[in-house]
This record gives sequence, structure tokens and C-alpha cells, in this order.
Amino acid sequence: VTDETIGTLAAIRPFSFPVVRCAALTPGSDGPLAGIVGDRPALLLVSGSVQRHYGAQIDQLAADPALNVQAVLPVPTGERHKTLTTVEAILHRASERRFPRRGVVVAVGGGILLDTAALAASLYKRGVSVIKVGTTLLAQVDAAIGIKCGVNTRDGKNLAGAFSPPEAVLTDGTLLQTLPIRQVRCGLAEMIKLAVVADATLFELLQRHAGAFLAGPRDNGSARRLIDRAITGMLEQLQPNAYEHDLQRAVDFGHTVSPSLEAATDYRIHHGEAVALDCALFTAAAHLLGVLQRAELDQVVGLLDELGLDRWHPILEDEQFLDRALTAAEAHRGMALNAPLPAGLGTLRFLADRADLPLDLLVEAARLLRGSA
Amino acid sequence: VTDETIGTLAAIRPFSFPVVRCAALTPGSDGPLAGIVGDRPALLLVSGSVQRHYGAQIDQLAADPALNVQAVLPVPTGERHKTLTTVEAILHRASERRFPRRGVVVAVGGGILLDTAALAASLYKRGVSVIKVGTTLLAQVDAAIGIKCGVNTRDGKNLAGAFSPPEAVLTDGTLLQTLPIRQVRCGLAEMIKLAVVADATLFELLQRHAGAFLAGPRDNGSARRLIDRAITGMLEQLQPNAYEHDLQRAVDFGHTVSPSLEAATDYRIHHGEAVALDCALFTAAAHLLGVLQRAELDQVVGLLDELGLDRWHPILEDEQFLDRALTAAEAHRGMALNAPLPAGLGTLRFLADRADLPLDLLVEAARLLRGSA
Repeated sequence: VTDETIGTLAAIRPFSFPVVRCAALTPGSDGPLAGIVGDRPALLLVSGSVQRHYGAQIDQLAADPALNVQAVLPVPTGERHKTLTTVEAILHRASERRFPRRGVVVAVGGGILLDTAALAASLYKRGVSVIKVGTTLLAQVDAAIGIKCGVNTRDGKNLAGAFSPPEAVLTDGTLLQTLPIRQVRCGLAEMIKLAVVADATLFELLQRHAGAFLAGPRDNGSARRLIDRAITGMLEQLQPNAYEHDLQRAVDFGHTVSPSLEAATDYRIHHGEAVALDCALFTAAAHLLGVLQRAELDQVVGLLDELGLDRWHPILEDEQFLDRALTAAEAHRGMALNAPLPAGLGTLRFLADRADLPLDLLVEAARLLRGSA
Repeated sequence: VTDETIGTLAAIRPFSFPVVRCAALTPGSDGPLAGIVGDRPALLLVSGSVQRHYGAQIDQLAADPALNVQAVLPVPTGERHKTLTTVEAILHRASERRFPRRGVVVAVGGGILLDTAALAASLYKRGVSVIKVGTTLLAQVDAAIGIKCGVNTRDGKNLAGAFSPPEAVLTDGTLLQTLPIRQVRCGLAEMIKLAVVADATLFELLQRHAGAFLAGPRDNGSARRLIDRAITGMLEQLQPNAYEHDLQRAVDFGHTVSPSLEAATDYRIHHGEAVALDCALFTAAAHLLGVLQRAELDQVVGLLDELGLDRWHPILEDEQFLDRALTAAEAHRGMALNAPLPAGLGTLRFLADRADLPLDLLVEAARLLRGSA
């Protein structure tokens, strides 16, 4: 048989979605959800925290005549519940209610809820629309913004997922008022990540306002400036590379060893905390490699310290752990390390090759972080 | 708070893949797989039938120095194994082998294997490339061609899935020689489906050659003409509507009550057999509705009879079953029935509205099929 092309299938799938600042859970026909969802059947997927803190608003939306809410489905969160089993439970409960293909999933919660709900939405009948309402800082500036969703498998973080754009993302600063301080820190870590390698202005904003933001209030003018800048910065990073065809990504800063760190500590270290540790480690490594000045390293570490984010953990001095973590990162980035390193505040360079980052240099970087005052 | 757009993310994801007739499992640097995969790590996902009938060729590919095969993973098939549990097992075995993001899944098997493997590939690290090699007639003319993949849930067929284009589809007629006759019939049913509502020439080709094709040989000139015509016809249907934005699809002919029929009989009726029954039912209904002549109905039924495909099943006279099945079809097609009906051989019209198709007319159509000689 000579190879012969019988035919070809080609198409494009464009998407475009807005990130809208609004009072997201406002009921009635003037509310933002009614404006977007219209009369389409809706499923509200909510986390336990959202039920606890915003149960009354959720109930109001469920009964809202301006919406067509089929059901409110509570979804268990925590990294241990971020699994295909939870996704399958969501699919089952949607099927039970005969949720149709033209329905809209409204996901209200933190990053784990959004990642899980969006994957379920992308799989249900091969994909229904999803609107993301992030209720944590991390979700608002990071998890809700992109088109990635996914769940963990026994082998690691987000190993089962999809690129699946939402229909809209709603950002509501008032929802941050009830957020535990530990989770505010986690969100700030993602903002620091972006600032250190890509946005010197955001870094200055963080130095000036992040401390007050942490203490609260979290929806005043400077809080919104901080969050808007983080969101637009994130969108700028994603815009040319939404599907990650380019595996050298600035937003991977803070995400080189952190997935392994979370898994190794059985998720006792939360995602943002792991990101902060990873940022500190690679900032110190950048200094040791001669691409970042000591004063800049001190500014990064100083900001982490001020916000109560750890910059050192004993496992970061464990060569075996680091070796495995880098190997996992390589497998995820096209079999190359492609690790972003700050080269001055707000700019970066990539360490493409594992050979450019000796393990003992990383260990030395960790020791430096432990030792420095 | 006044609603205010902070930013927007927009992108397109184009795809294009060829369907290539070739000796798909030929090893060596001249083989089609080596030509496409190159030095990228590959995982071969194969069904039990493929292992039984083509184990030697698969072993040869696994050891082929022209390829970089990390592992051969046998995947359990049968509708009962087409589940997220099987997908998760594939993800785990890929992770164990550190299968990288730039790796290529080569899926070799029938429709169930391809649907399951392609969903696993689309989820693994949010998507790795997949090449589909269909080893059944149904896979070659239908399951391998489109961009849909998916698995069943406890609530129904293909309720967890994705639109995920392959990198290439390889079609090899010699693989059909070992195919059990029941499975050849199932593939012919999908070809009949397409012919009746969209391709009068394919219908004539089937009348002329399908009987001989069933008996074999299955890779001679007329066999290839049949299959190539079915594939190009399928590609023409999919090209303008790959993501099913238009929910009136000719290729849904034979797929209105058949998913429920398969589930109701616990998958003892195979997919193609259910498609044939559904085609017969809606062809008879078209006649009763006055859009198809009796002689045309007789031609369709005559072809099914000749090929040994049942055109009647007792459950098709069960109003309760039909009611549930149509409701499920509506939920899948934008809350409208959107059922294709042949309006003359090779052309169609859509029954958009459930109200246009009384249940007792469907029951009468089933009785007509039972009664007619």
C-alpha cells in the first residue's frame, strides 16, 4: 500500500472571555449573573466555605426568578478531593437533573473548586459553558483567569486536566473580606510570583499596599488597584500563549519545585505557600548564579517576610527531593527545565537546561534563605 | 460596584489532521508511524483484540529503533470498561513511565479503544498528541474520523468526553481481514446511516459491494472505494461543524434512540446494531410522515436484511422507552429533538420539535418494520 491521504479535517475554535469586576452574587435581573446566563439552565457549584459564608446569597440566587437555577451542588474541596472521583460525582448529579448541553455551570469558590468544576463542565456531554466566580485572592488573580482546569491524580498535581476557556470570569473584592489570612497570603504569593519576574510596578504596589491589604479592608481603592494590576498582568502573560505552545512561561516562576513540595508534604503546605517557597528558592539561586543582585534578593525575601510567607523549608535542602522535583518539572515542560529566574526585579531569563542548575547550587540557595536575617 | 471589565483573554486553537490510507503497523524508518512520530516518546495503547491478532507487529513496533516506544499499554475494552476508571488507569501508567507532554499516544483498536485512549490523551497533563489507528470498520469510517472522544458514566453513553483532534488518523484495510463478521456489520451500519441521509452514491456502492465486503476479502479495490467514500462523506459532514455548534447534524441519523437502546440492553446490542435499528425506525417513521416513499423504505430495509442487520427489536414498540430515549436525545441536542429523517435516499430533513413526532407514530413505525417481509 502506498500512503495516500483520503481527506483532511481542519477547523479553528476561537474563544474570548472578559474578566469583570462586579458584585458577583447580586440577584435579580440587574445582577451580573442574570445578565450573562439569561434563561439558560444553570447549575451552581459551590465550595463548603462559600456555603458557610455566602449561603444566604446562594439560596437567593437559587430561588431567583431572573435565573433558571436547576440546583446548587456543594463540591468537596481540599487537594485530597480534587480528583476524577469528585468530577464524576458532579457529572452524575448533573445527569440526574438532566442538565442540558446548553446549560451553564456557575462555579463559586477558590482555586480548587474552580479547577474541579471547570474540568467537570468541560467533560459533561463534551463540554458545557462555565462562569467562574473566584472567592479567594488566589482564585481571583490566578486560578480563575486562565483557561486551564484539572484535578490531581495519585501521581501528582493537575495530571488530569484540560484547556477549556470559561464564558466569563467575575471578580468581586467584597468576597475577600471573609477570607482567612492564610489564604490571603497564598493569593499574595501568586501576585509576588508575577511581580518578581514580569512586573516591577506590581512589585512596588505590593511593597506599598500588600501589608495593609492582608490586614484589611480588602476592597478599597488600593486593594482594587493591586488586584486589577495582577489580573491584567496575568492576562498579558496568557494572551500570546494561552495553550502553552511556548513552554518558557514567566508564570511558571514559583511553580518549578512547588508541585512536588505540595505533594511531598501531603498538601499540608498550601499551593500559595509552596509558590512563595519556590519563588524564594529560585530568587536566591538567581543571585548565586550572578543574574540578580543581593539587594534585589533581599527585597523579595523582605516582602515575603513582611507578609508572613515562609521563604525556607527543610525539604528544600534535600538533594533527592530537588532532583525528583526538577525531573517532574522537565517532564511537564517539554523535557527541558525551562525555569524562569528573576534577572533584576520585573524581568527574567530562562534556565532552559537542567545542566545549568546544579543541585548543590539549589541547596546552597536554600541554606542562604535559612541563614539570612 | 459598577460592572467594569478588567481585561479580556482571547485566542484561537486551529487544528488540521489527515486521514491516511497506509500499512499502519509497518515498522522501520519507512513506516508511517516513524514518519509522523519521529523521535518523540510514544505510548502504544492497544485493545485485547489487537494484542491477540497483531501482537507480533505490536512487539516489533515496541522494539523498533526507528521509534521511541516507552511502553505498550493494553487497555480493557467493551462498553463496561469505557469509563473514567479506565482513563485514570491509563493516566497512572503514563505517569509511572514519566511520559512527557511532548509524547505521542498511538491508539490501536476499535471505537471503544480509540474513544477511551483519546480522552486519556486529552486529559494527561492537559493534553498530549494522539494518533488513531482504527482496527475495526466502525472505527475506520466513524469513530477515528472525528474529534470527539469520551467514556460512559453510570448515567449514559459518552457523558464524559471532549472535543480533541488527533494528530493523524491511519486507515489500513488489511486490519479488517481478522475482524469478526458481527463487527463488520456494525461498521456497515454507520456507513448506511451516512448514505441514507447524505450520500445516494454511497448507498448505491453499499447495495453493490457491501455483501461481498462482508464475506471478504476486505481490502480489494471495491472495499477501498466503499471505505474511502464513507470517510470523505464523514469528513464533509464534520468539516463545517467539527465542534457541533450546529445541533442539527446529519450524522446524528441512527443516533437518536440508539444510545438508550444500547444502555437499556446492557450493551448486549452493540453500537452499530443499535444504529441500524435506529436508522430503520426513523426511516419507517419518515415514510409514515409522508416524506419518504415506500420503495425507498424497502430499499433501506432490504439492505439491512441483506447484511444481516436487525431492523426490529421489541423495545422499539415500548412507548415508555421511546419517551425516555427522546428526552435524552433532546437534552443532548440543545433541548430540541433535531432528529434527522431521510427525505428521499441521500437527502434529509430535520424534525426539530418533539411535538412533530408522536410516540404512537414511532410505535407504528416499529410495528411496520416487524411486519414487513
